[in-house]
Amino acid sequence: MEGTNVKLQHAKTPAIQDAYWSAYRKLVRETVIPYQWEALNDRVPGAEPSYAIRNFKIAAGLEKGEFGGFVFQDSDLYKWLEAAAYTLAEAPDPELERQADEAVDLIAKAQRPDGYINTYYTIKEPGKRWTNLLDCHELYCAGHLFEAGVAYYEATGKRKLLDVCCRFADHIEKTFGEEEGKLRGYDGHQEIELALLKLYRATGNESYLRLSLYFLNERGREPNFFLDEWERRGRVSHWTGTVSGKPDVSYNQAHRPVREQTAAVGHAVRAVYMYTAMAEAAALTGDETLASACRTLWANMTRKQMYVTGAIGSTHHGEAFTFDYDLPNDTAYAETCASIGLVFFAQRMLRLEPRAEYADVMERALYNTIVGSMALDGKHYFYVNPLEVWPEACERNPGKRHVKPVRQPWFGCSCCPPNVARLLSSLDRYVYTSSGNTAFVHLFIGGETSLPLESGRVGLKMTSDLPRSGDVRFVVTPERANQRFSLALRVPSWCEGRTALRVNGEPVGYSLQDGYAVVTRDWRDGDTVEWTMATPVLLLEAHPSIRADAGKAALQRGPIVYCFEEADNGAPLASLSIRADASWTARYEPELLGGVVVLEGEGMQDAADWAEDAPYRPYRRSAAPAALRAVPYAVWGNRGAGEMAVWMRVATT
Amino acid sequence: MEGTNVKLQHAKTPAIQDAYWSAYRKLVRETVIPYQWEALNDRVPGAEPSYAIRNFKIAAGLEKGEFGGFVFQDSDLYKWLEAAAYTLAEAPDPELERQADEAVDLIAKAQRPDGYINTYYTIKEPGKRWTNLLDCHELYCAGHLFEAGVAYYEATGKRKLLDVCCRFADHIEKTFGEEEGKLRGYDGHQEIELALLKLYRATGNESYLRLSLYFLNERGREPNFFLDEWERRGRVSHWTGTVSGKPDVSYNQAHRPVREQTAAVGHAVRAVYMYTAMAEAAALTGDETLASACRTLWANMTRKQMYVTGAIGSTHHGEAFTFDYDLPNDTAYAETCASIGLVFFAQRMLRLEPRAEYADVMERALYNTIVGSMALDGKHYFYVNPLEVWPEACERNPGKRHVKPVRQPWFGCSCCPPNVARLLSSLDRYVYTSSGNTAFVHLFIGGETSLPLESGRVGLKMTSDLPRSGDVRFVVTPERANQRFSLALRVPSWCEGRTALRVNGEPVGYSLQDGYAVVTRDWRDGDTVEWTMATPVLLLEAHPSIRADAGKAALQRGPIVYCFEEADNGAPLASLSIRADASWTARYEPELLGGVVVLEGEGMQDAADWAEDAPYRPYRRSAAPAALRAVPYAVWGNRGAGEMAVWMRVATT
Repeated sequence: MEGTNVKLQHAKTPAIQDAYWSAYRKLVRETVIPYQWEALNDRVPGAEPSYAIRNFKIAAGLEKGEFGGFVFQDSDLYKWLEAAAYTLAEAPDPELERQADEAVDLIAKAQRPDGYINTYYTIKEPGKRWTNLLDCHELYCAGHLFEAGVAYYEATGKRKLLDVCCRFADHIEKTFGEEEGKLRGYDGHQEIELALLKLYRATGNESYLRLSLYFLNERGREPNFFLDEWERRGRVSHWTGTVSGKPDVSYNQAHRPVREQTAAVGHAVRAVYMYTAMAEAAALTGDETLASACRTLWANMTRKQMYVTGAIGSTHHGEAFTFDYDLPNDTAYAETCASIGLVFFAQRMLRLEPRAEYADVMERALYNTIVGSMALDGKHYFYVNPLEVWPEACERNPGKRHVKPVRQPWFGCSCCPPNVARLLSSLDRYVYTSSGNTAFVHLFIGGETSLPLESGRVGLKMTSDLPRSGDVRFVVTPERANQRFSLALRVPSWCEGRTALRVNGEPVGYSLQDGYAVVTRDWRDGDTVEWTMATPVLLLEAHPSIRADAGKAALQRGPIVYCFEEADNGAPLASLSIRADASWTARYEPELLGGVVVLEGEGMQDAADWAEDAPYRPYRRSAAPAALRAVPYAVWGNRGAGEMAVWMRVATT
Repeated sequence: MEGTNVKLQHAKTPAIQDAYWSAYRKLVRETVIPYQWEALNDRVPGAEPSYAIRNFKIAAGLEKGEFGGFVFQDSDLYKWLEAAAYTLAEAPDPELERQADEAVDLIAKAQRPDGYINTYYTIKEPGKRWTNLLDCHELYCAGHLFEAGVAYYEATGKRKLLDVCCRFADHIEKTFGEEEGKLRGYDGHQEIELALLKLYRATGNESYLRLSLYFLNERGREPNFFLDEWERRGRVSHWTGTVSGKPDVSYNQAHRPVREQTAAVGHAVRAVYMYTAMAEAAALTGDETLASACRTLWANMTRKQMYVTGAIGSTHHGEAFTFDYDLPNDTAYAETCASIGLVFFAQRMLRLEPRAEYADVMERALYNTIVGSMALDGKHYFYVNPLEVWPEACERNPGKRHVKPVRQPWFGCSCCPPNVARLLSSLDRYVYTSSGNTAFVHLFIGGETSLPLESGRVGLKMTSDLPRSGDVRFVVTPERANQRFSLALRVPSWCEGRTALRVNGEPVGYSLQDGYAVVTRDWRDGDTVEWTMATPVLLLEAHPSIRADAGKAALQRGPIVYCFEEADNGAPLASLSIRADASWTARYEPELLGGVVVLEGEGMQDAADWAEDAPYRPYRRSAAPAALRAVPYAVWGNRGAGEMAVWMRVATT
């Protein structure tokens, strides 16, 4: 393997120091990661066993037993290890590092002599490797291993896991490809594509780049690999063990070559993981057809299939996209992992071409769906993030049974919580990019960074009051005195263009470029930049083709989307409406829900004068003014089960 | 068997002669019944085979082969025979009678020497009779046989099928019961309970009444029969052939004794068939606890779980009720058969105690959901009757895949179309009841009847202009000159109390009694009664707990509920709203949809000024006046696939 180009990309500094985000990251560090380690070791009383560590011990020959859990169970350990690595990159933690090393040793022992690692196939079906790529997640698990290996190397400088990854990647490279004698397949759940690009970036080994491009290029070609594979294995499904119907390969985004895909379809997480790899590959190779496909898919997904909370995936059937403008609020799937994948995709698009639109969406997903998926105690999670909830319907209408009115204990399922952990613990990687001689600020999250520009490195220390206010401050530390470069600050869509920029206390002008305020000057050590964005309360309406939101409006302030809860407004929420002309007061409530800005305004409440013992009567609705209170969507459901709605009817007056 | 009390209850007169209904009955007679006979004989090109006749031939030893179709396939032939019988009762049809006799002969040949009939158990699992009552519909099929046998005897005077029924009923009576050595069970799909009461009424044999009461009384008792049976058969489900989870017996309304049930739960058709039997049993026996349970269940179902179209069943999962006020318009199940069962239940409640409320609901179900289930060509049907449709969502959002935007060929499934046929062909039985010395008119459907009153028989000939206008006329033919009796005319909820009554051209007063206008006098042959009910256009609102209809209103005129279709109003319908203060014009359109009264009025249309390539924007909605047109719900979807909505947003002005 080639290892000479390996470089540590991230310094061990506390990259995030932010009034809002540090609390969530602290939860991850102090609660989520330790708790999950116990869960992976089957030591959480009352929780379903994970089997993950145990599977590795059996595969390593250290224990006897049967494989346990899902076919993709290995990925849970890898995702934990990745999150642990980011946490170690931020601050040393000898006990965590000891646990992580223990996991690394175990993974290394489970690796077969030929480089292959997968505990399911090692323990349960040794002769069946690579026979059911559609269902069985072998390459998906490999991808998560590679992400963990790269992160752990970058965090600790320890090569052991990275070497394990490279041996496995080399084995995969020998197994898959267009060449005679290789398997011309790809995975049912995309992930390895983006992971190989990380491995390429970390090692400089171009065969990993080529292998990732092969997987992307091969996908969806005719004859269809998944359909051929399904025939070869006698049409038997892994999930049922019986003969299955012809797979709908659009679920796996394999219905046509990736460059010819124009709309987001199928399983939402698979889709965004694939788009992420496509965007990064486009940036790495300059492949304009790939970049163009990414732009088309981005536009379809974020302009026609995305909820105002940055959630995606309209149906729980297949955890999938449906079609343009179909965004039901109460039966949404809106999976946490899908929004996390959307953040990955946005980050790669920003690397490809800095445009504020990508960062706007990234911020929307982050501050609303992703943060909202975690309870304030860090121990309960939403996998489904609805925009409207009637708790009794979740329980008693089977079509809404996937929607939960309160967060569930995180160990009940193993997919979203570690994904939140690895995103939040690596949040510093989403704040900035550098391009040429410009330092781009995409998110306003306090902390420190050092960016490589053409003119030399630049240190930036950001202090941000978001989401309480739009006041942000930077201290600039250029590598050289009077270093000339551009600072590009995103102008968020929510500030309605109302911004102010001061350098060292003096107002300065800026040019607007793809949604960024760009100021170019000679910078000196200690220069301060004050960037003020207005945070008006926005009343939003939805595109008229989004039937679910017709006649309704939603509130947003800064990046925060609001919702109405029964706890504040009573029930049924459907009897309330908001006035298009109301003025809303934003007030910080330090004691409420960990400290939030609430919005208060006058709305209307339908008169509760229903004396009839009948479900319908001649229309005589009347409404009276009512005081309404909205709280950030991200903190809904932290006060017990109750109704919740993001979109509220606009009053008939 | 006892047969001495057998009496012909219905005269062979064309009991229905009605401008509106005769057309639908003609469709049944000329199209539905002949077509279905071909289908039952597997002679419809391109249609899935029914197997029904073939199964009987195999069971009768006339052919060799395997059983085909569902375990309850026999009921299709029985339901067809019942509809054929009603049709023959109205007018002779030698060819139809020949086909029916052929079917009767076949059924008789398939009967086992001990009286048992069921082609599935005869052909496929001969030793397994009565081992899976939960899943396998043996008694359900028996019930449909009994309904057919009674109807055919009453229509033709031929006893052969009735005798077959009695032999089977006697066999069932020997098999089931509380007595030692009998099986203490009941069926998973209620039907035999109501059918045995019909058989009792037709034959006078009280053992059939007792058997029906046994089935009702036994149901839901502890220990639960279905759970014990499930254990006995090794927990194997008929449907999957594998071990199944513990059955949720509330699906079968067996979660508690019937008298203790207070809310409509579970599979909607099973529920209403059971309530029908309960109400009839209460009327026959004077059992007040049973009557009281019926009133409670009626109130829950019709006041809290019924759509404005008279549809019931909010979810397609289990074709079931959900819970109070959960009435989603776009994911409704609202099965045609469930509304038919609701009509059965209402009819029995009217026999128990004439109250206009029961007839109001019966009329609502009949004129909207039930008629609406059939296409104007009589060859296409809805099984699901939604109140809001977005065709693309039906196709592309799996949560709505059960909803069809156009009616399907009726032979694709075999349950609802023959049920519509047997209801429409026996419609005369729902129009009147007699009680003591009062003739009650529940529905305003033209035709002739003869009612037995304490004072003697009374002939009534009704002419009705419904639903075009509320003008109804009766010609009275008492058995004796100056026969004194009361005529009770329902005052429908939709006329808002605006009625006028004339006898022989002179205005007369009436007393109001449980929603009926009662006029008591000495009647002479040829007396005419003119009964005029106003048909104002009603704008309806829904109970505030029905979240799905909040801020919305629906139109009704007479018994007809209206809807808005894309064909008249464009799409998306969600961008339209109606004005609470608008006046609506009712206009008869003879050329439209077979001749309907349309409603026209001024509403509002949201401005289509969405230039942004974004799904959300700051609220600036504006609306302009727009001409709106509504058509009867019953004829929606006859102009190709398009959007449809019953409940429309009320304008923000």
